[in-house]
Amino acid sequence: MTLLRPALLVAALAFAIVQLASAADPAKPAAKPEAKPAESTIPKSKAMADILAASPKSDWRPLDPNNTLYMELPAGRVVMELAPAFAPLHYDNIRTLVREHYFDGLAIIRSHDNYVVQWGDPNDDDKDKSKAKSMGSAKTKLASEFTAPISADKHFTRLNDFDGYAPEVGFSDGFPVGHDPKAGQAWLTHCYGAIGVARGTEEGTGTGSSLYVIIGHAPRHLDRNIAVVGRVVQGIELLSAVPRGPAPMGFYENSGERTPIKSIRLAADVPAAERSQLEVLRTDSATFQATTDARRNRHDDFYLRPAGYIELCNVPMPVRPIAP
Amino acid sequence: MTLLRPALLVAALAFAIVQLASAADPAKPAAKPEAKPAESTIPKSKAMADILAASPKSDWRPLDPNNTLYMELPAGRVVMELAPAFAPLHYDNIRTLVREHYFDGLAIIRSHDNYVVQWGDPNDDDKDKSKAKSMGSAKTKLASEFTAPISADKHFTRLNDFDGYAPEVGFSDGFPVGHDPKAGQAWLTHCYGAIGVARGTEEGTGTGSSLYVIIGHAPRHLDRNIAVVGRVVQGIELLSAVPRGPAPMGFYENSGERTPIKSIRLAADVPAAERSQLEVLRTDSATFQATTDARRNRHDDFYLRPAGYIELCNVPMPVRPIAP
Repeated sequence: MTLLRPALLVAALAFAIVQLASAADPAKPAAKPEAKPAESTIPKSKAMADILAASPKSDWRPLDPNNTLYMELPAGRVVMELAPAFAPLHYDNIRTLVREHYFDGLAIIRSHDNYVVQWGDPNDDDKDKSKAKSMGSAKTKLASEFTAPISADKHFTRLNDFDGYAPEVGFSDGFPVGHDPKAGQAWLTHCYGAIGVARGTEEGTGTGSSLYVIIGHAPRHLDRNIAVVGRVVQGIELLSAVPRGPAPMGFYENSGERTPIKSIRLAADVPAAERSQLEVLRTDSATFQATTDARRNRHDDFYLRPAGYIELCNVPMPVRPIAP
Repeated sequence: MTLLRPALLVAALAFAIVQLASAADPAKPAAKPEAKPAESTIPKSKAMADILAASPKSDWRPLDPNNTLYMELPAGRVVMELAPAFAPLHYDNIRTLVREHYFDGLAIIRSHDNYVVQWGDPNDDDKDKSKAKSMGSAKTKLASEFTAPISADKHFTRLNDFDGYAPEVGFSDGFPVGHDPKAGQAWLTHCYGAIGVARGTEEGTGTGSSLYVIIGHAPRHLDRNIAVVGRVVQGIELLSAVPRGPAPMGFYENSGERTPIKSIRLAADVPAAERSQLEVLRTDSATFQATTDARRNRHDDFYLRPAGYIELCNVPMPVRPIAP
């Protein structure tokens, strides 16, 4: 019988908390010559683990405690990074809700396979509104923020690979984004782990009191139709693997099915000793360019045919503990 | 407080077993004029549910019991369709393994977030090979089948949307495929729900005794590097939501963590009364073209900006119970 435990992939990154990356490269550098002439023009890349191990400290940035949320679930902590520049009204409202402990005691209300996990107040839709949780001093009506006027030169590192959903794609301050240079607009994209603001059919009905995270193949058609506010940087598996709900669209039908939320806190409001000390690779760094290219053109013993292309949502977004 | 239960999406299909589709369209037809001039050139489409409801019976085909597998888990049945044309040696070997009850009593051995769930013999990698399950009359060594010589005119319906991972993409007999017309080759793609043959680093080490299913953003860089043999058509949520494994690459560390496999059976070997009576939309039908276009250009009250594009792995693959 053949060895099957190392099947599919050979090695994980030594500091393998990069759960959002769609799997680690084999650790061995390329040794085998290209089998197909057509691929011989693709430049060789070093293995991703080697690139990260050799990266300068300055290519990493710690998460900003003022933009970082901790969702505490019975199974552990989910760490989320908010992007203030893309939906500032929603960013402010979510921070207000969090600081007033709005989410504490609420729940995951929906798990829709290959799509989203959503959390908020299970009683939101109850006819008897008195059961719904008060939003305190947070706003109950906000203007839509589906795109933002982002200066391309300052906050956009382009990914040159073609994208069908946007004129250009790339990265802005650590987030995968779409970009329309003619319109001077950018927006956060619905890649795996993206966090968005649930809304009703009408524009302007989202407040941040109910949020969702993408847990399947990127539904990029949602881009520019709903406000995206951040992404999960650690602990996505605590959300993505909750049982799917039995009702239409993955809603749960009773409290016994729902995963309760113990609390959501701003990292800045948590004692320093209890914070998750994480740093993320700067998306405008040379190391990020190198890791992206290593994934675009995989040269190792496993991959006989490197893709020569990388789709935006397949670009790894490295995260690691900060060395003490 | 705004209505948040209908957030994100308004209605599910009436016969909503299409779990692999990345969410249903709102049921209401487009009523609102386009807000942006740039989108006014996109042709309007009917809602997907309306298209399916009006589809002729001849646009659907029942699953072939000889190409259909039932994986029985404690939580229920996963229905998988095999594609005989793309990896015939592996197809034969998997059928042999199934008919000799190889998988019965084995387990899900790995759940790697945003990547794969894999099943097989947990003892495969044990130094004491005597603990590994015998593969019976199945072959233990097969030639690689990463691409197949598929006649484009007969078995390929092209999707005209750009794809970065293949010269052309489209559908062949119900499966999303890549196609290289110059090489005269096609291959099954790693979309969500695709089933592949785990292998080691060396080519030719996969036998079908360990299989994986894609449970995250499509890792299309695996295309043409590993044999894909089919896809899950119902019950994917029984695989995608199993707890992620704690060891590197999502492996479980002990039997208590693993989900046991009660059995895997060929539908043809199951009494007719116990079969899952399902039919799938023919991918070479006019209805399939119409549903794909409805998703490419969403015109309804929720979507303010239709994408005008659809990525291969976002194309819905409708499945429904056969009406008695």
